Order: sequence, then structure tokens, then C-alpha cells
Amino acid sequence: MVKLALAQINCWVGALEYNTQKILDQIKLAKKYKVDLVIFPELAITGYPPEDLLLKPQFIKDNLKALKKIVNASKDIVIIVGFVDEKDDKLFNAAALINNKKIIGIYYKKMLPNYGVFDEIRYFSPGEESPVFKIKGLKIGISICEDVWKDSGPVSDEVKKGAELIININASPFHVGKIKERESVLKQRAIENKVPMVYVNLIGGQDELVFDGGSMVLDPGGQIIARASQFKEELLIVDFKESNKLEKIQTTEEEIYNALLLGVKDYVSKNGFNDIVIGLSGGIDSALTLAIAVDALGADHVKTVFMPSAYTSRQSMNDARDLAKNLKVELLEIPIQPVFSAFKVMVSKAFKGHAHDITEENLQARIRGNILMALSNKFGWLVLTTGNKSEMSVGYCTMYGDMAGGFAVIKDVQKTMVYKLSKYRNKLSHIIPESVITKAPTAELKPRQKDQDTLPPYDILDEIMADYVEENKGFNKIMKKEFEDKTVRKVISLIDRAEYKRRQAPPGIRITKRAFGKDWRVPVTNGYKF
Amino acid sequence: MVKLALAQINCWVGALEYNTQKILDQIKLAKKYKVDLVIFPELAITGYPPEDLLLKPQFIKDNLKALKKIVNASKDIVIIVGFVDEKDDKLFNAAALINNKKIIGIYYKKMLPNYGVFDEIRYFSPGEESPVFKIKGLKIGISICEDVWKDSGPVSDEVKKGAELIININASPFHVGKIKERESVLKQRAIENKVPMVYVNLIGGQDELVFDGGSMVLDPGGQIIARASQFKEELLIVDFKESNKLEKIQTTEEEIYNALLLGVKDYVSKNGFNDIVIGLSGGIDSALTLAIAVDALGADHVKTVFMPSAYTSRQSMNDARDLAKNLKVELLEIPIQPVFSAFKVMVSKAFKGHAHDITEENLQARIRGNILMALSNKFGWLVLTTGNKSEMSVGYCTMYGDMAGGFAVIKDVQKTMVYKLSKYRNKLSHIIPESVITKAPTAELKPRQKDQDTLPPYDILDEIMADYVEENKGFNKIMKKEFEDKTVRKVISLIDRAEYKRRQAPPGIRITKRAFGKDWRVPVTNGYKF
Repeated sequence: MVKLALAQINCWVGALEYNTQKILDQIKLAKKYKVDLVIFPELAITGYPPEDLLLKPQFIKDNLKALKKIVNASKDIVIIVGFVDEKDDKLFNAAALINNKKIIGIYYKKMLPNYGVFDEIRYFSPGEESPVFKIKGLKIGISICEDVWKDSGPVSDEVKKGAELIININASPFHVGKIKERESVLKQRAIENKVPMVYVNLIGGQDELVFDGGSMVLDPGGQIIARASQFKEELLIVDFKESNKLEKIQTTEEEIYNALLLGVKDYVSKNGFNDIVIGLSGGIDSALTLAIAVDALGADHVKTVFMPSAYTSRQSMNDARDLAKNLKVELLEIPIQPVFSAFKVMVSKAFKGHAHDITEENLQARIRGNILMALSNKFGWLVLTTGNKSEMSVGYCTMYGDMAGGFAVIKDVQKTMVYKLSKYRNKLSHIIPESVITKAPTAELKPRQKDQDTLPPYDILDEIMADYVEENKGFNKIMKKEFEDKTVRKVISLIDRAEYKRRQAPPGIRITKRAFGKDWRVPVTNGYKF
Repeated sequence: MVKLALAQINCWVGALEYNTQKILDQIKLAKKYKVDLVIFPELAITGYPPEDLLLKPQFIKDNLKALKKIVNASKDIVIIVGFVDEKDDKLFNAAALINNKKIIGIYYKKMLPNYGVFDEIRYFSPGEESPVFKIKGLKIGISICEDVWKDSGPVSDEVKKGAELIININASPFHVGKIKERESVLKQRAIENKVPMVYVNLIGGQDELVFDGGSMVLDPGGQIIARASQFKEELLIVDFKESNKLEKIQTTEEEIYNALLLGVKDYVSKNGFNDIVIGLSGGIDSALTLAIAVDALGADHVKTVFMPSAYTSRQSMNDARDLAKNLKVELLEIPIQPVFSAFKVMVSKAFKGHAHDITEENLQARIRGNILMALSNKFGWLVLTTGNKSEMSVGYCTMYGDMAGGFAVIKDVQKTMVYKLSKYRNKLSHIIPESVITKAPTAELKPRQKDQDTLPPYDILDEIMADYVEENKGFNKIMKKEFEDKTVRKVISLIDRAEYKRRQAPPGIRITKRAFGKDWRVPVTNGYKF
């Protein structure tokens, strides 16, 4: 058998030169290991997903130029690399097989996903060929991502044509449980076709998506015989004659935490920021967000600001201060009362005769949003928002207030999972004060306010929401779990009505199978009542 | 020949009962006119585009129940209506042919658009049949929207099978020039197949899209022999033995103005609002937005607020007051200086040693955004934003400031077109003060500020932007028009860098062939340099 290198790299969408240089470096390294074949992920040259960059003719040309550089580096090694090919005015999601300065074969992806977060039919035409290539006497078939998900599909066609090894290159985004789904499909495919499978995935954050790596090799019995790390770049060397590295799969909390960490790290660096700023409330959402940011960027690059009002408790202040101290980050303190008072005077004539209501609550959140954005403007810090998925779903958040910022770290993390992740992080080192975890959640926008005055308990809310949002279940199906009728109605109706808020939310990291992002395309104007 | 009614109705996405009632009313009316066949638009039952509502199994069921009600109303009349069908776990964009309480035929759309604003392959499977139906001795073929855009496509198949009349039902969104494109395609199709064509489109606003109607009938020579109004509901009766109503096509300015008017009207009413509020600056963008809002909703439902700072000129104040007076709308005046001063004191410690810069400019815009949102919260008014496409493209706008609001009326209107539309509106009745049109554009966020200090002249900016955004041209192609090298570079780079702002902008009405909405899917994290 041939000796392989699975190049699990972190690509940067659009950064053709950066990606190409990274690929060239890995080729050099693979040569050092005397590898026969080095394999790169799907669309490694362009990064994934390039979205509407693919509609720019110059972008396609530039990607082909980059491919040439890789071709020129292929002396004495075989390379498989993902790129965009153009033929007869059509674009293809392609893999080039390269050796000794020549492209010796090209494979075009056949199964183009156009569901969930994927829009591939917007750009690409499906391939129709099932070529089989010979490398050092071994016949290989190439497939791209979705191609292996089909029973009796492209893989079977190639095996029928004699392929003895299937290479599958991917840009497969993370969600909880995804790695098990992949394993199961690959196992099925290996057994179905009695063929070893090589699965190469990329890593890295790209707007809302995080790619988790976990590249692997299966034997014809469907046994995993080699696996790379999750969320880390790696050149996994696989020699079929020896036993290989077999990384353990991370626990759910570990996976999610690392996905969030990588997502933040890459969004910040790939968008050219050095430092970020977070508003600390003393609550658990901002505490977890801060912990992730510090783990991703280092304390020196993380600024925090505490913005108390008359409704802020001493406990919240102590918790915010303790947290900042534990994480060794700078903490600014800017009380908002003077501006809040000035605001109330300013609108007093317009509001005459109207009682305080949610308007004044939102105003406080928006003053805080303004402060964070002012710090961002003045010092070039990226504002990370701290809202969780439970809030985002029911609209328990203020537009231009706590929703103001560039990147929403835990946007797809339910409140119940926020607690789990905080406990997970505290096990690594105890940084989140215990009282932050144990006290009742509150927005502190009016006296004695608690989240649970307005919302169902989070364990119930989160389960109904997951059914409705992630599982696409309707009222009747959700009710099978014996929730209270009025609770389910309330949650669904809150979710439906909050669509206009989500439309203006910053992007955030997807960790579930359906986030409020590209896989959630719900009209704002919507007359449907369940 | 049969007597037809083209039911150009305003559907409401998701509002199945509302749409069904409207369809039933039109059937009744058609019966009164002794029509043989009444034709409704594509997906008339669900509204278009239903987006991810289509992923809800209950929604599909409810749409089929609505269809049954229509079937029951089909005594003595033939009906063609668009709905969603389900078969073998697949969804189809379908047209039902109904008569005497029976579905006598179903057509499934074959050509599913998955480009621009369209995502139909996300939801639907393509049809494969070309049925031909007999009505009162006449053989008809049915097609849905995109089906007629293909040479030797579905229409030809039906004509080969004997169809003597082609019915084409549509949900075709407006953009400038679209009606000419449609006419040209339908003409081609009629001539190619020597067959009369009936084109039925809907009207109405749905989030960013506006459907413009303009339903029409062509004879086999490609001549248009009947045409309905644009942007208005209508039951167009067509009798092939007589001459029929032939509405004139509107001018470009008229079309755009009416599209904006309908877009505002429907967004406001379909989302359950009664009143809207606009911040008036004294400038032309807010003036035009206000004129549109008043024409759409009536002066009683439109509130305005003028929020001067120390940098606001007396001219701006006079212009804002004159405009409000001309349009007979309520004008609140809320000076922002007290809050601005309080803010500066509040952040003075954090900003110590740093000069005033864009931070303080943005702060003013955000205080205004806060006031508008506070009015919205307190009184339930929808905030309409006033930013134009030129600003949105280069990021000459403040997140959470002038971008704050629920609906961005002129988001897809270039500044140069803002002037044209203002002049067009003034011809109908002179409401926008002359000085608003003649003075140099300014944001008035610092002393003596003019847009043109920062941006290229708008006629140049708009042309480069249209090339880059709407035509997808790259640097080299744009430079063929002999712009200055550095101007083109600057504009492209500003557009690229403003992506993060657009991601959090409110939805707004699409009037060009590429707006910053569903047809603009550009990554925020983007390393591509032209």
C-alpha cells in the first residue's frame, strides 16, 4: 500500500495566496516524511464556503493560477487538492490529482448539497464521471464530501471500476454529534464496497461555521485505523503496514467548547483584529464568553467593561470583578446612570403621561451597546456579544443593546448548555465564581427582575425550542412530550415573533444541527399561525 | 376560444386562510363575469417565497387543506392555482387544474431557479411530466414561472403534445427593467411555438421583494394583446374575440416609486403595524423616505422626529420643518446635545488622551437611533430607516445609528436615483423643498462636513458600485470605462470592507437586479483581494 499524508489544514476563505502557501508548506513536510500521496481538503485553495466570491470570474481565474503553483511543487509526490474548475461556462467543485508537475486527473463532485447551510447548486454543476486513477500500482477513486453519503452512489461506481482505495476530501462543518454521523456513513460505505476509505477534513472558523477536522482512515471492514485531532491543524501520516495515530473523540462539552474557541480565534484573526471587548454583567453568559475569549486570544487581547445601573446588584459587581481578576483581564467600569437620566429628561416631553415600561429597559441595554461600540470605534476592539440561543430564540434580548457587536460567540448555545460549559471550563481551572453559576438569571433592567418572571424555566424552554428549531417539529409533535399546552404555544409564538430581531443579529458560531444562521431562512413577514 | 380571468392578487406569505379567502372572492367575481377559466399566480395559496416554512410538515398539510376549499368552490368554472404538493416524500411547486369540485390535473414546475434571490432546489424537486389538458375543447399546457425562460423547454414539449394555449403562472419579483425581460422571453416563446401565452403574476411586498403584477396575454405572433396594471390587484378579463385592456408600462421612476410604496405598505400592514416613525435630518434621503411613507400609509400614520445637534444647520432645521408641514405629518423635535454631553463625560476617563474622531460622530447617530427605538417601543411605531444604496455599499452609515430600524425603504436605491425619484415625486405635487434637492449632501456629524470629503462624487461612485455589485464586474472590467485607478480601488475596497455592517442591516426593498439581500451572499470573513 502507499504511504499517505492527510493534510488537515485551516483554510481562509478567499485568501488564495495564504491557502496556497500553507498547502506548499505541507507538501514540503509530506516529502520529508517520504509520503507517496498527500491529500488536502475540499476547496482547499479557496477555503469553504466561498459563497458569492464564486460569481466573480477573476476569483475563479486566480484560484486556477494558485493551482498551477501547487502543480509546480509536485515533483516526486502525488497530491490531491480541492479547487474550483471551470469548463464550458460551468463551475465544478473539483479535486485535482497531481504528480510530477502535471495534473494527471480531475474529479468533479457529483452530489451537491443544497440544504441546511449549503448552497452548492447556486454555484456548481454536478460531475458525471467516475474516473479511477493508478498510483504506485494502486487504483484509487476520489470523492468529495457529500458523494460518500449516498448508498450505491459515486463510491460504488468507482469500486465497480476497480478502485481499491477511496479518498474522500471534505469541508464538513461541525455540529454536536456530527463526528458520529460521519463515522457511521463512512463505515457503511467501507463495508458496502469492501474498500478502505480515507476521509480528509479541514479545520477552522468561517463566519458562523466551524470545521472540526477529525480526519480518519477506515479499513474495508469499516474499522477506524487512524484519526487526527479535532479542531487542530495536523498532517496525519498513515502507513497501512503499521499502526497509526488514533486520537480519541472529545466529549460533548469539550467539543463545543473547542468549537467556540476556534470560532472566536479565527473570526478575530481572519478579520484583522487584535483585541476584543466584552461587556460583563456578572451573569453566566458573559462569564462563559469571556472564558472562551481568553482561552482563544490570551488575556492581553481581551478587554472587559462593567456598566452598572441603579438596578445592578452588589453581587453582580463582585462577580464581574472576581471574574476579571481570575482571568487577569483589564476591567473598565462605566456606570450608565448619568446618561440614562439625561435620556429620560430628553424624551420626557414625548413620553409625557406614559409609565415606565420595556422602553426604559431597552434604553439601558442600548446605552451599554453604545459604550461598547464607542470603545470599539476608539480603540479598534471587536465587540463580542454574549447572548445565548435561548434568548435569541424567544427574543429575550435588545436590538442595538446587548445584541450590539461584531460576533455572537454563544448565539447557538442554549442556556442549559451554557451552565454545562461553564462547569466544564471550571474543571480545567476554577475561574468562573460559584455564585455566577448558582444565582438565578436576571437582566437587571428593573427592580427584582428575573428571567423566569417572563420565560418558562430554561430546561423546559430549551427542550421545546430544540424541538421546534432544530428538529422542525410542529405544535402537535412537540406536545407528545407532555408539556403544558400554553407553554408550548407561548414558546413557539415568541420564537416566530422574534424573527425581525434575529435578522439584525451579528453572526455567531453554529454548534447545533440548526442555528439561527444560513440554515434558518424564515420570512420576517409571515402570516402562518401553527 | 375560452374567456379568461387573470387573477393578479396580493398574497401574504404563510397566511393560508387569508390567501384562500382572497382566492375564493376572486372566483366568485370571475363567475359573475361568466369566465371559463380563472388563473391564480404561482404558490398563490402559500404566498411567495415561503422559504423555510416549507420545511414544516404541518404547513404543507395546511396548504393542502386550503386547496380543498378552492376545489369545493369550482362548480361551473375552471381554476388554475399554485400550491405546494407532496408526493413520495418530495415537495413540488405545483399548479392544480380544478373544475366542478375535482382536481382534474396537476402540473409540477420543471425549471427550479436556484440563483439570485431564489432557493427553490432547497425545497422542491423538479417535475418531469408535460401534461396537456382539454378545457371546453381547447388544449392547454401549464407552466410555472422559470419554465418559460428556456428555449425548446417545457413549453415546446407541451405544444408538441398538442397544447393550443400556454398558461404561465408566476411569482416574479420586480427589478428595474424586469418587465422588458419578461416580455422579450414570452414573445420568443410565443413565436417559437406559434402559440398564445397567458402570463399571470402576483403583486405585493414580501420582506425585500416586491411583486409587480403586469400580467399579460400574447398572441401566437408574440404581440401583447392584454395587460394588467403594475403594482395593483386586478382581475383582468380576457376575451380572445374582443379587444382587451392594455395598460401602459410605467416609466423607470414611476415603477421604482410605486415598488417602494407597495413594499412599505405591505411590510407595515402584513407585520401588524399601524404607524411608522422616521428620523428627519433635513436631507434628501429622509425626505424621499417620508414622501413614500405618506403616500403608502397616509399622513395620519406617519410620525417624524427631528433630532438636532450642535452641528445641525439652521437650513436643515427649516427644511425638516417645511417638509413635515408640506406632508402634514407630526414632527417631534428632540435635541440630542444633553445626552451627547453626558455620554462624553461618561467615557472621558476611558478616552483620556484620545482626540475626537469618528467615535463621537457615530455616537451622535446612535443617540438618534436610541431615540427612534425608544419611540418605537413606547408607541408601537415601526422605525423606517433612510439610508440609500450608495451609503450601504461603501459603509457610509452607522450601525445601530442611522441603520437602526425595522425596514430600510431606499436601501437598494442609489443616491443619484434618490434625486431622480425626489424630482419625480415633486412633479406629482411639490412637497420636497427645493433646497433639500440642491444643497450638498452632509451627515452633519462634525463641523463643515460634506459626504464628498470622504466619498467620490455620487455619479462616479454609483456607476462603479453598480458595475461591481449589480454586474459583478472585477477591477479590470470596471477600469475599461476610464475611471481613475485609485477611485475604483477605493470604492471596491470600501464595499468589501463594509460587509459586516450590511450583515446587521434591516431588510429593505429590492429594486435592482442585485440588492444587498438574498441575492448578495458574500462572506464577512473574506481574504480575497481583487
